[in-house]
Amino acid sequence: MIILHHCWRSSDSRRVRLSLAEKGLAYESRLVDMVIVEQHSPEYLAMNPNGVVPTLIHDGRVLYESSVIAEYLDEVFPDPPLLPADPYDRAVMRNFVRWIDENSLPKLIVFNWSQSMQPVASEWTEAELAERLSRVPSASRREAWTRVARSPYTEAEKNEAMAGLVLLLDKMEDMLKQAEPHEWLLGERFCLADIAAIPFVKRISELNAPAVAQHERVARWWERVQQRESFKQARIEAYSDSLKTETSTTS
Amino acid sequence: MIILHHCWRSSDSRRVRLSLAEKGLAYESRLVDMVIVEQHSPEYLAMNPNGVVPTLIHDGRVLYESSVIAEYLDEVFPDPPLLPADPYDRAVMRNFVRWIDENSLPKLIVFNWSQSMQPVASEWTEAELAERLSRVPSASRREAWTRVARSPYTEAEKNEAMAGLVLLLDKMEDMLKQAEPHEWLLGERFCLADIAAIPFVKRISELNAPAVAQHERVARWWERVQQRESFKQARIEAYSDSLKTETSTTS
Repeated sequence: MIILHHCWRSSDSRRVRLSLAEKGLAYESRLVDMVIVEQHSPEYLAMNPNGVVPTLIHDGRVLYESSVIAEYLDEVFPDPPLLPADPYDRAVMRNFVRWIDENSLPKLIVFNWSQSMQPVASEWTEAELAERLSRVPSASRREAWTRVARSPYTEAEKNEAMAGLVLLLDKMEDMLKQAEPHEWLLGERFCLADIAAIPFVKRISELNAPAVAQHERVARWWERVQQRESFKQARIEAYSDSLKTETSTTS
Repeated sequence: MIILHHCWRSSDSRRVRLSLAEKGLAYESRLVDMVIVEQHSPEYLAMNPNGVVPTLIHDGRVLYESSVIAEYLDEVFPDPPLLPADPYDRAVMRNFVRWIDENSLPKLIVFNWSQSMQPVASEWTEAELAERLSRVPSASRREAWTRVARSPYTEAEKNEAMAGLVLLLDKMEDMLKQAEPHEWLLGERFCLADIAAIPFVKRISELNAPAVAQHERVARWWERVQQRESFKQARIEAYSDSLKTETSTTS
């Protein structure tokens, strides 16, 4: 039995839902209310000390961090495989996912949090902000919360963040060129590298569609991705739509 | 054939040398001169875009990031295995390594760079510093270079960094308690979790020996680690000794 604590809109939740859908695995969905910062509640932190979504529970055992969850699912439910067959390609895949996590995720947060968290966090009193920050486990996330609560990202910062996100498309264009005549990032097999990139390309396509169109191989890859059954099943929807379906009614 | 670009003193290089030694793999050693910042030279960056040590080349294929290299070696040279047998334990292992990389490594850099880089970087002119920073791929590493070059870490910052490092010992004590009656971090098998921690415990034992002694299970684990043949083969020596054997004669 699989239980998934997640958000419809979170990139890491989307990655894990894509893996589950590709493998045809059913799960019990438990939405985490990020607007009331449920992911930093003592109950959630006891389960996931990093205080982020998603958390997956399989037969009572708790897993977190999307890349770690994805490799676990691939080991326990090997069919269909979501890792490349060649160990070297697996190394390339792991470095690519790590690169996205270190480089693209901080850039995407600028846009996502401005849209989702700022309207709520900007209303917090100093005491409420301090109380909430005291429960955020990571320094970089404390910084992001402080920014949306008190000094919203500027247009210049957003432009810089977008330039950073476009580097992902450049990298993918190179990988897809190298993979030809195959059509996925690491060759013949649709794998965790493709899954890791999907939530980011989805958001770039919403925020800056011309950038995707200008990368012709990425644009064709993106068409293929959207036609996969898993894309619908995992509900990789417009960010604003995901937000609507999960915004807390208590705030 | 395996070629390893590395430093004797670097924690990530030490991890990879431990994996190679455990598996009995010979390699050609190529020392990277960090004092002349060889890891940011165009030649090195063409091979390893992250600009860090180590880089491992196996049969002409380039690998980087110690955790990715270690999993690759375990897949290609499975005997003896350095991953736990149970997929869930492997997930715990991957999150533990990630936790060290995100939490302990930035703290250790405060001590290592003060000792190794500061004497050199503090002599750079503004123009030399700017030129060097322009070739550092990551923002956090640019920050660290700027600190050692221009505003050395204070005693208060070092105390805070040491408190952060001790959290690793706390975490390990819990893991070793849970693993009993087995003696390694994730149970019966010495694995990549143990290897990932070794370079950090080595440095903590040099900088703050009482902290290790106060964690009784860690102290016993540390005795066992030092008795392994791989510990000698991988040359996990005192930091100052490693530094002596690789300091550039040109600076």
